[in-house]
Amino acid sequence: MSSAREKILKTTSVLLEKQGCHATGLNEIIRESGSPKGSLYYYFPEGKDQIVSESVLQAGQIISERIRLNLSEHGLKDFILKIAENIEASNFSSGGPLTAVAMETATTNERINLACREAYTMLVSAFQEYFIQKDVVEEKAKKMATFVTASIEGGVILSRTNHSADALRVVAEELSNYLEV
Amino acid sequence: MSSAREKILKTTSVLLEKQGCHATGLNEIIRESGSPKGSLYYYFPEGKDQIVSESVLQAGQIISERIRLNLSEHGLKDFILKIAENIEASNFSSGGPLTAVAMETATTNERINLACREAYTMLVSAFQEYFIQKDVVEEKAKKMATFVTASIEGGVILSRTNHSADALRVVAEELSNYLEV
Repeated sequence: MSSAREKILKTTSVLLEKQGCHATGLNEIIRESGSPKGSLYYYFPEGKDQIVSESVLQAGQIISERIRLNLSEHGLKDFILKIAENIEASNFSSGGPLTAVAMETATTNERINLACREAYTMLVSAFQEYFIQKDVVEEKAKKMATFVTASIEGGVILSRTNHSADALRVVAEELSNYLEV
Repeated sequence: MSSAREKILKTTSVLLEKQGCHATGLNEIIRESGSPKGSLYYYFPEGKDQIVSESVLQAGQIISERIRLNLSEHGLKDFILKIAENIEASNFSSGGPLTAVAMETATTNERINLACREAYTMLVSAFQEYFIQKDVVEEKAKKMATFVTASIEGGVILSRTNHSADALRVVAEELSNYLEV
């Protein structure tokens, strides 16, 4: 994949995470990525919906890989505490790259909604694999994975809103109490 | 409070819940609420930020009252299952009135951010009171309340994104397993 294309997706991802989908315009993406307008339309001929959808799917891939790589090594609690640290390091402008976009577009943009759905499915599957490796039966592992995904998403929202990652640290503690992992 | 003012806030709340803050313009609020433009500026002289902030605070009040009224009577699990039903009844366009706005504005609009923070604090406090009534000590009650708020918020996001309230039903089941309430 070309680096110009990658740069556009990366810039979009940062903007979506910080301010959501509707606040993010093509001109801002062009400006922030330093890409010429022609380059943006060359790589994404279908415009904003295409860029946002691909950015969301890429976020799903990146996060699910991170779950696979880190969870079995460090455990769930440390994985969540690391997210809390990253949110603080970003001054509360990043964390939960899918959340705002998913809520804004749930019933208002079918293409982006389908991308968000696919991205969340990647996350839940990655957590589910982890629980299956820990000998949890498949159906229960899926429930635990859904619960973990939901709690982390909510913890990120509270942490970013409160400008304090305490909520996510509580989620880390309570989840690891409950799930004993 | 005048009914014209109330109608503007109610319309805003529905729009924020469905599509977030940035997608919601004053013209749409005027059109959907059937309020004359002059009426909107009479009640909200500071414009959109004021309307959104007041709408967010009102949502915080309404939800925390609902938590207080329903939780001790029906218990936590049934309370969450009722949210799942409401999301389905809205065809996934409502549920989580704070979520999108909170994420969009966490670091981009101080006034709205502070309103979201206050609204979430109302929710957490209402859950905390419930746990304190159940003889949980105050600090642990606050952690449980934070965990419950986060899990429900995340369950709403997954449910609306997936156009299926299954995720929220999983949250209801897992939370009540863990917290035994």
